[in-house]
Formats: sequence, C-alpha cells, structure tokens
Amino acid sequence: MNIEARLTELGIVLPEAAAPVASYLPVVVENDVAYVSGQLPFVDGKLATGRLGEDVSLEDGQAAARACGLMILAQLKTALIPLDRVKRVVKLGAFVNCTADFTDQPKVANGASDLMFDVFGNHGRHSRAAVGVPSLPLGAAVEVDAIIALHTDK
Amino acid sequence: MNIEARLTELGIVLPEAAAPVASYLPVVVENDVAYVSGQLPFVDGKLATGRLGEDVSLEDGQAAARACGLMILAQLKTALIPLDRVKRVVKLGAFVNCTADFTDQPKVANGASDLMFDVFGNHGRHSRAAVGVPSLPLGAAVEVDAIIALHTDK
Amino acid sequence: MNIEARLTELGIVLPEAAAPVASYLPVVVENDVAYVSGQLPFVDGKLATGRLGEDVSLEDGQAAARACGLMILAQLKTALIPLDRVKRVVKLGAFVNCTADFTDQPKVANGASDLMFDVFGNHGRHSRAAVGVPSLPLGAAVEVDAIIALHTDK
Repeated sequence: MNIEARLTELGIVLPEAAAPVASYLPVVVENDVAYVSGQLPFVDGKLATGRLGEDVSLEDGQAAARACGLMILAQLKTALIPLDRVKRVVKLGAFVNCTADFTDQPKVANGASDLMFDVFGNHGRHSRAAVGVPSLPLGAAVEVDAIIALHTDK
Repeated sequence: MNIEARLTELGIVLPEAAAPVASYLPVVVENDVAYVSGQLPFVDGKLATGRLGEDVSLEDGQAAARACGLMILAQLKTALIPLDRVKRVVKLGAFVNCTADFTDQPKVANGASDLMFDVFGNHGRHSRAAVGVPSLPLGAAVEVDAIIALHTDK
Repeated sequence: MNIEARLTELGIVLPEAAAPVASYLPVVVENDVAYVSGQLPFVDGKLATGRLGEDVSLEDGQAAARACGLMILAQLKTALIPLDRVKRVVKLGAFVNCTADFTDQPKVANGASDLMFDVFGNHGRHSRAAVGVPSLPLGAAVEVDAIIALHTDK
C-alpha cells in the first residue's frame, strides 16, 4: 500500500519540517540508511515543552512523542525521500524530559513507536532505547531520533 | 570456539529474554547488523532498580550492567540469532541511572563491556558511550543497547 | 583537498588520543563505517569539567564540544584511519552535562558540529542528537560520539 494513502486513511497531516535549531542536517543518507536527527515535538507549530512527572501528563507526553515521530516523517519528505522508500524503521532513540522519579519512559515513547507501526505496519516495528533526561533543547518534553533503512533509489 | 560452549565454560546461564515493556521489538536485523533495544538488568528474574551514587553501589551497578549484557545475548537467541553468528560487537550504549555527582559511569558500564570480551574475545571489543541519566524505565539502575554485526546467515 | 593540510590551514593541532577510561575501544570499523566511542573534552591535556547552567558558560561549553570533536579526529588517526578516508560524518551524539533548566544543548553541540563542517566541508555535515544529562564520566562537561562513513581502504 502507498504510504501517502495510508497517511490520508489515518487522517494524518504531516507538520512542516522544522529547520535544524543549529548547524547540522535533519537527515543524512548513507548506504541506503537514513539517519534522522533528534526531532522535537511541534504540535500545530508550537513546541510541546515541559517535564514528565512535573507539568506534563503521560497522555501529553505520548502525544509529544508521536509529534516527534511525525516530524521524523516530515524530515524524510523534506529531504526528498518518499515515504514509500522506507524499507524498515530500524531504531528509535527516545529521550524523555522527566523528573528523577518518573519511570514510564517506555509508555511515553510508545507515542512514536505506535505511530511507526500504524503508518508502516510490520516494516515500522523497530528496536528502541528510551531513557530519561533532565533537560532537552528549547525545553522540549521529548526528543526522538531514528535510523531508517531505505529501498535503493532507482 | 563455539560460543555456547564458551558460555558454559564461563558458567553463564542466560536469563529468559524479557518481553519488551512497550510496542517495539527487542532486536531488528538489517543488512546483517543487529540493533538490540535498550535492555534492563534482570537478575534472577528481578529487576535491579535504584540509582548509582544513592542506593546502588559501584559493584551492584557493574553487576546490573553485566545483567543488561546477558539480556542482550538472550534477546539475540530469542530472535533466532545463534551467538556463533556474532561477527563483532560494534557498539554499546550504556545509560546509568545516577545522581548528579556520580562520575564513574565508565566503571559501571564495564560490567557489560567485560562480559562481551569474556564471551566473544577480541570480536567482543566494541566502541561505547556511557552517560548518566536521572531516571530509567521501571526504575532500572542501568540500561544498555547494542549494535552487533553478524555473519551472513547461510 | 587533503584534510591534514586543511587542519594546518585552520591552525588545528589534534590532541593526543585519550586512552579509553575503561575496557572498550575508541574506534570500531565495521563495513567501512567507523563507530567512535563517546569522547571527552580534553583541552591542553586537561579535562573540561563542570555543568552548563551552573559553572560552565555557553562559550566554554562550545569549546568543550569542539574539543570532543577534535578528540574524535585524533582517535581516528590513532586507529590508523587517515582523515582523508572520511567519506561522510554521518551522525554525532552530543551529551551535555547541564542543569534541569538549561535548554541550549544545540548551541553547545555546535562546537563539535561546526568543527566537522570546517574540517570536512559538506562531507562534514551530519545528523545529530543533542540532549542534556545530569552527569558524565569524570565530571566532563560534554561527551560526543560519532558514526563516520569511510572510503574503502585500498
């Protein structure tokens, strides 16, 4: 199935790809593997900030992680990589801005993981590391980076 | 030397592979490279929790890191990857749950690194990043993920 | 252009490669990709310690990140990988030792990112994740690891 059609079916409109907040690239492709920089959660153009266990609920944290995932997809497209070229989501790294007593990083990260499964089916099932961090760029609630295997461009 | 025989020689019994605590896969293999999700330290089926510099000693932290390493091996086997297929442990990422004044992350991470060397010899020698984090899934003391190159499956 | 000549042009003298502070390797090359372990910021042989948002200024943090980048290059050379073999800096992971209210991790990490661009030009432009952490090995202010694609050794 065509992934753009699948996005439409899911009612997903990708956000505008955020410009890197510093001197790096959002996506580097090497040997048919896309390395996507850590993406921040922009929802309706506004950054989801705050800290799990403090001022961000689990549900809002999951929505933020999902927004990071959507931004990963948006960055691929902006880098002129059609989503149909995605062969396999290989790995997600989820960094959760949280207090020292918050231990539900996996549930938060599921916001991004479930998105990948919804969009790509079994090809979206990935390995993952989810950890807590005391602070993130611009005060973001979550940051997610990705390694994504691509079909060879013809 | 056969790796299973080496495990026996070392007196190592691998733990039962832990089910992912969320919607991802423990191992994804792409192009003969295994990406192993961040593993938590289960010792005798019980999660090693706590924080270095607070309520976990250096020795217990090292044992927890080693337990993460054992879980990485267990996950490979559960993913039907015989340990003899391991060509090279390429990279370990060690996240140490610790206080802000704890700076012995490398010594903690050695629990996992030494295990890889013990089991795989020079093929187990890897690159590594070890950092402190304020909290980990389920309150785990350590989390370790891995990138492992495999011999091509015949 | 020859990279060693470029370093000279930039007035860069690489530091002596730091020995791993534990039982791992500074660099592992697998399938023409170099995985460089997390490097700490040694400036004139002295480790740059401290915490952004507390006792390390943004400028000093950037200098520390740049020092991590220089150490990445030094480690490649010590591993007998000529810098001219660098095909592409694929990914940097920047871990910034900081307080919970510090949110300029990207600006800090730019110290390493800008270095890669200065030295390798467009081949030095990379993907990146930058996050805050509460503590780093030996009290370092910044730690940076890298994935670097190499030209096939002839």
